[in-house]
Formats: sequence, structure tokens, C-alpha cells
Amino acid sequence: MKKMIRIGLLGAGTVGTGTARVLNLNQHEIAERVGTSIEVSKVLVRNPDKERPGFEGIAKTSRFENILGDPEIDIIVELMGGLHPAKEYMLQALAAGKRVVTANKDVIAQFGHELFAMAAEHETEIFFEASVGGGIPIITPLKECLTANHITQIMGIVNGTTNYMLTKMSECGNDYDTVLREAQQKGYAEADPTADVGGLDAARKAVILSSIAFNSRVQLEDVSVEGITNITPDDIAYAKDLGYVVKLLAVGKDTEDGIDVRVHPVFLPQSHPLAAVNGVYNAIFVHGNAIGDAMFYGQGAGSLPTASAVVADIMRAAHDICQDQLSSVGCTCYEQKPICPLEKTSSCYYVRLLVDDEPGVLAAIATAFGEAGVSLKSVIQTRQNVVDHAEIVAITHKVLHEKMQQAMKTIRGLKVVDEVRNIIRVENGEDD
Amino acid sequence: MKKMIRIGLLGAGTVGTGTARVLNLNQHEIAERVGTSIEVSKVLVRNPDKERPGFEGIAKTSRFENILGDPEIDIIVELMGGLHPAKEYMLQALAAGKRVVTANKDVIAQFGHELFAMAAEHETEIFFEASVGGGIPIITPLKECLTANHITQIMGIVNGTTNYMLTKMSECGNDYDTVLREAQQKGYAEADPTADVGGLDAARKAVILSSIAFNSRVQLEDVSVEGITNITPDDIAYAKDLGYVVKLLAVGKDTEDGIDVRVHPVFLPQSHPLAAVNGVYNAIFVHGNAIGDAMFYGQGAGSLPTASAVVADIMRAAHDICQDQLSSVGCTCYEQKPICPLEKTSSCYYVRLLVDDEPGVLAAIATAFGEAGVSLKSVIQTRQNVVDHAEIVAITHKVLHEKMQQAMKTIRGLKVVDEVRNIIRVENGEDD
Repeated sequence: MKKMIRIGLLGAGTVGTGTARVLNLNQHEIAERVGTSIEVSKVLVRNPDKERPGFEGIAKTSRFENILGDPEIDIIVELMGGLHPAKEYMLQALAAGKRVVTANKDVIAQFGHELFAMAAEHETEIFFEASVGGGIPIITPLKECLTANHITQIMGIVNGTTNYMLTKMSECGNDYDTVLREAQQKGYAEADPTADVGGLDAARKAVILSSIAFNSRVQLEDVSVEGITNITPDDIAYAKDLGYVVKLLAVGKDTEDGIDVRVHPVFLPQSHPLAAVNGVYNAIFVHGNAIGDAMFYGQGAGSLPTASAVVADIMRAAHDICQDQLSSVGCTCYEQKPICPLEKTSSCYYVRLLVDDEPGVLAAIATAFGEAGVSLKSVIQTRQNVVDHAEIVAITHKVLHEKMQQAMKTIRGLKVVDEVRNIIRVENGEDD
Repeated sequence: MKKMIRIGLLGAGTVGTGTARVLNLNQHEIAERVGTSIEVSKVLVRNPDKERPGFEGIAKTSRFENILGDPEIDIIVELMGGLHPAKEYMLQALAAGKRVVTANKDVIAQFGHELFAMAAEHETEIFFEASVGGGIPIITPLKECLTANHITQIMGIVNGTTNYMLTKMSECGNDYDTVLREAQQKGYAEADPTADVGGLDAARKAVILSSIAFNSRVQLEDVSVEGITNITPDDIAYAKDLGYVVKLLAVGKDTEDGIDVRVHPVFLPQSHPLAAVNGVYNAIFVHGNAIGDAMFYGQGAGSLPTASAVVADIMRAAHDICQDQLSSVGCTCYEQKPICPLEKTSSCYYVRLLVDDEPGVLAAIATAFGEAGVSLKSVIQTRQNVVDHAEIVAITHKVLHEKMQQAMKTIRGLKVVDEVRNIIRVENGEDD
């Protein structure tokens, strides 16, 4: 049994600082549980001369080689983020036989297969629990605890920024721009929020979750992505009236036509377990053929919550080193399932139209939907402040995406329809 | 690598049948994921001659020795339930070096330490994910995924029968006896429901969860237990009015005065993640010093959900056999923390009193609380159908149990107080 496991930390940002803090704060528990002490031996930073609270007494270097070439370092923990050189550093670490722990969803989503192959080739391991859902245990539960299931569906609120914004819009009735500014002021949204509000961050997590859940490699370009920038207070108010909440979901479904994987806002029934997930909290909802519905809930980001997952991975890697074993489940993409093309996916839809306020409009619209084979579940018509105009809100039954597109083409062409104000999918669960 | 892992199943009841079914249903996935096939080789039943759907072609025996002595059997899966002879069978299996998987909360709660010691002595493993929360992953997440945390609190809805009953009482306003009969008709409650409604089943799960969360052995007699038999539709209606729901919780807290572990009904704020856990669903809420709040949600019982956890354990045991390794985290009770005596525990309380409807009653009661050092958060007084009577409902701030007892003694002695109708704890979370 080794007396001490030494780690090299790449990056001393939010998660790096949290990781050093958790290792220090809970060092007694950690040593008891692993059976050996763990210490941060070196940290890779841009400027080694800068003082960094929380890293006192730890060697700082700006050269990765100083960490890679240190024979005393057993585990390399990549928390620098971004694709490059994070990917190259991890590949080199694995090639050198070191264990790797990472929180990097970008690299795992895009190059995960290369990393797993390199780890297998060099009889070592890579752990990435923190790459999805911050501290929420989801990678290990999916790979190990739910492994007896054929998983058919995974739906997650996996982006804290957008969930905070949608929660605020719902609670206060504020518009998109107001809540974005508020989120930026509170540090929940970046100065350039594109990756969050546009859905790219959630798409990367959808790639990781779907690949694991369905045992088949999903790529970023397979994900159909829509962000929350078009959501208005009116949509949120209609949702409430109709018994729904609006959430940005990463959705993966294993269908007969292949893997259906998308990120977009949805109307979710107020009674759905995900509907109560508010603010910066995240949750991942899974349906398996044995367990039925299950959900994993917690903070999806933040220094200490993310460090909770990073340090747990470090402890498992340390335990494996001490036991001279490889306990992690490697790549599980042993199948090659097709991707379901967007046109072949099915959903219920919410449609909001601005129309002329005159008799027969509702009938014209209902006829257009009917003729395209789209069956309606409910329709509301509301007078508007704009003279001679009304709003029509329709919820459809489940329909093929291509049929819906066709119906909307006809409806856009109707003389009485002035504007298609929004189209949002409705997720009712398995029984859509 | 072994070509085939053979298991001996003890018990062919609900969970045993589910386990055989999941192993059969998902055999393709299971073989891919473990790297070897798994088959049920023998099953222990009372009457081997009885036909059992789902066990066709599997050898049946009424003698445990026929399973224990079979050198081809690698894993013994105990699903017979009850303390004896389940405990003895598991001890013998471990002593013979076999891996053991069990769903038996009774044995794990009471004799877990003996089983862990036996497993360690004979360099084998025992897995028990299914013993708490059915299929919900909670044991592995606690022992492995949250292992970087100092866990300070664990609160669970861990009994489906009582959660179904309380949900029904809340939705329909029915009384206890009516919902109990309904639960029995639907098969959610046993003919003798004592262990469920009295809180013993939840107490056993509280023992297992607290022992793991706080790294210190908790015994069944350490748990202060109260069931749901005293909950009336009136209590549930008051809860709703005050912004709460009523749930039966297993609560464990790591306090300065020791481990505080109890099972009892509580008023839970409607906004708490556990408040939305309805029907036969279970959920376990955990607070750790790194992750903050996290929650694990799913079906807490049932044939296939429980089998989901049992088969995952079987697969891990099979993988370990193939790799010739011990991957499970054994006993984690490396500390010996005292148990916090009930009098020293603190809670907020809901108190409902039947009183004389005359001026000055409210003042008399408020004075009695105040003199005992119990500070009130809110008080409601309602006229009753009974002539000259009113009901007073008070919610206290956080107070020591012994102080509350003292206050209630004084209040019971007041001439104007006719009856103490109920006292229920209020859980507001960390910030009580």
C-alpha cells in the first residue's frame, strides 16, 4: 500500500480551487476512506509567480512536462477546460500510464472515444463524473447502478444558467433580456452567454449522457439544438395556465428509428419530477425497462459541488492504484445505432399564433392542422391589445416532426395568420 | 475470463421472480456489459415440485446445502427476506468464499457488521444496493460518488406504503382507515401493515443510511420511531394551508451531540424537493459539505425496480470474479460516534389543541409556551363544530425536544385545554 498518492492539477480556476479545498477540508475522511493520504503535488498555471489562495505550499509550473515527467505523480487531474491542449495533455498522461480525472465535457463529448482507447491500451483509467451535472452522481449510476436496464429515455436539466433564467422568468414574469442581465450580475451567466442560452453546453452533455445510456457513440453534430432566446413571458404565462412549466431539456430517446437526441425548450407538466427543479439546480431523469423512472438531482455547477465529483473520482483512482486494479467501466459504446433524423422524431407541440380577430379564423387554422394530419389536444383564443388581432394557442397530440413542419407551412400561408409567435415541444413523458 | 457466471437464488418471491426476469429480458446487454454470460443455476424454494413461471428449466431445491456445496455457483443471491435463516445462509456463503448479493434490509440493518467482517475475512464481497430504496441507486452513490463529502444530513422517503397513503390522504381528504384499506386492495400495503405504518421498515433503512453516511454504526434501538397512525385529514388540511405537506421521513443528522436518527411524520415545505415525491415513489435527500443538497428519486419497491438493483450488484460481482478483484467498498464504519439522546435533539413543531372558545385562551397558551422557552412562529385559532370549542394550531421555532416536552406538560395541565390533538415535527431544512 502506498503511503501517499500525489496528484498533478491542471488548472487553478473555480473547479481547481474547489478541488484543492475539498481535499484539504475533508482530508481526514478522505484518508480513512481511501486508506492512504492524497496531496496536490504540483499545479499547472499560466503564471507560476501569481499568488493563489488555497494553493499555498504547492509547486506551481507553467510547463505540463514538469507534471507529466514527475514519476511521483500518480494521477493527473485536468480542470483547465477547453478542447486544446486539454485533450493532448490527457492523451499524454494516459500514454504515460497515469490515471486521469477530468471535468471537461467538451473533450469527453468530442474525443471521449480516443481517450478511452488510449486508457485501455495503456492499462490505465480515465474518470469524468464531473463532466455532466457538476457534483450530481450520474455517470457512475448510469454505467454501474443502472447497468441491468435497457435504458430507453434520458432527459436532463443540465444547464444551470438557463434553468436559473427560466425559473426567474416564471417566478417574476420578467423578460429574457432582464433575467439574462440579472444572471450575469450574479455570476450565473458569462459575459458571452451564447454557449449556455444557445444550448451548446447542454448539447455536449446530451452527447455524453446518450452515448452512455444507449451504448452507442453519439456525436455533437447528431444533436438537434435550440436555445431559449425565443422564450417570452407570454409563452411562460400560457404554460402556467395550461398546467406546464418551461424548461430547457437535453433529451435522448432510443427509438425504433434510431437514437433521437436533441436540446430545446419544452413544456413539461407541472407534476413531472423535473418540473420542480428550479434555479441553478440540475437533474437527470432516466427511464429503464427494469427500474422505471428514476431521477438524480443536485447543483449542476459551482466550485465545491463540482469538486465533490472530481475528488470522488480522485479517491477511486487512488484506491485502484493502491489495490493495483482497474475498477472503472471503460468505453460502453459496444453498439452502433443509427441516429433518428429530425423529421422522423415525434413530439407534441405548443403553437402560438397572432391572427386576425374575425369569425372563422379558428376553424381555418384547425382545418389546416387537420388536413396535414396533426390532431389538436386543446386550443385557446385570446383577444390582444393590438386592435383587430387575437392570439391562438394550440397544443397538438404527438406528431411526426415532418408532418408538423408541413402543417406550419400551410398555416404560415393563411391570410388570417399574421405571425407564428412560437413553437415549443411538449413532453408528457412515455405516454405522449 | 470465465465463460459463464452461475448464480444460486435464495427465494422465488416477488424480487426473486423479478431478478430472473431482468436477467432473461436484458441478457444481451448484460453479457455485453459484463463480458460474460450470467445464468441462474439453482433456486432455493420451500416446495421444489411447485411450478413457478419464470423459473422454467432452472433446478429447484429446498436444501441450501445443494446451492452452497455446488462448486459451479459463484454468486449467492439472497432474496428470501426475514432475519433467519437468511443471515446464516449469507454467513455460510461468505465463509465459502462466494460473492453474496442481498436485498435484505432487516439483516443488513441488524447484522451488517458481521457480514462485512466475514466477507473481509474470506476475501470476498457482499452487495446490498437493493436493501434501501428498491432500485434507486443510493448505497453506491453514498459509498463511492459522495465519498469526498462530510455528510451532515440524510432524509428519506423510504417507505412506499406510507407515502402512498399520505399522498392519497392529501389528494382526496380521506381518513387513515380508508386509505389503508385502499392501499391493501391495491397490494401496496400488507394484510398486517404494522411494520410499514408504524415506521419499523423505515427505521431499518434509516439505520443502513445513517451508518454509511456518518461512518459510524447505528443500531435499530438508536432510532426514535413514530408511525403515521395518528395523522388525520385535519392535520393534512392545516399543513396545506400553512404551505407544507405531510411525509413520513427517515432522518439522520450528524450533530455536535452525536448522531440524531429518527423516523416520524413531518411537515415539509411545499418547495422542498422531497415534497413532490408522491405515491409509491421514494427519494433520499443528502446534504454534504462539498456537494450541498442532492437527491435520488425512483420507485422504492416492486419486482422489476428492485431487481434492477439486485442484477446490477450481480453484474458487479460477476465482473469482479472475472477480473479476480474486490472492487466493492467494504464496511465504512471507521468511527464511533455517540448517539444524540432524543431530549437533546432539536426541531420545529406543529401543535394542534382543542380548547375552550373563550377570551384569553390564546394568551394563556402563548404564555405557557413562552415560559417554557418555546418561541412561536405562527398561531391559528379556528372555531369548531363542537359548541364552545376552538382549535389552536401553533408552529414553533426550533427548540430542544426536552423543552418542548416541558411546555406540553404545562399546556396539558391548563384548564382551558381540552385535548392535545397532535404534535408533528416541522423540517425546514438546514436553516430551521
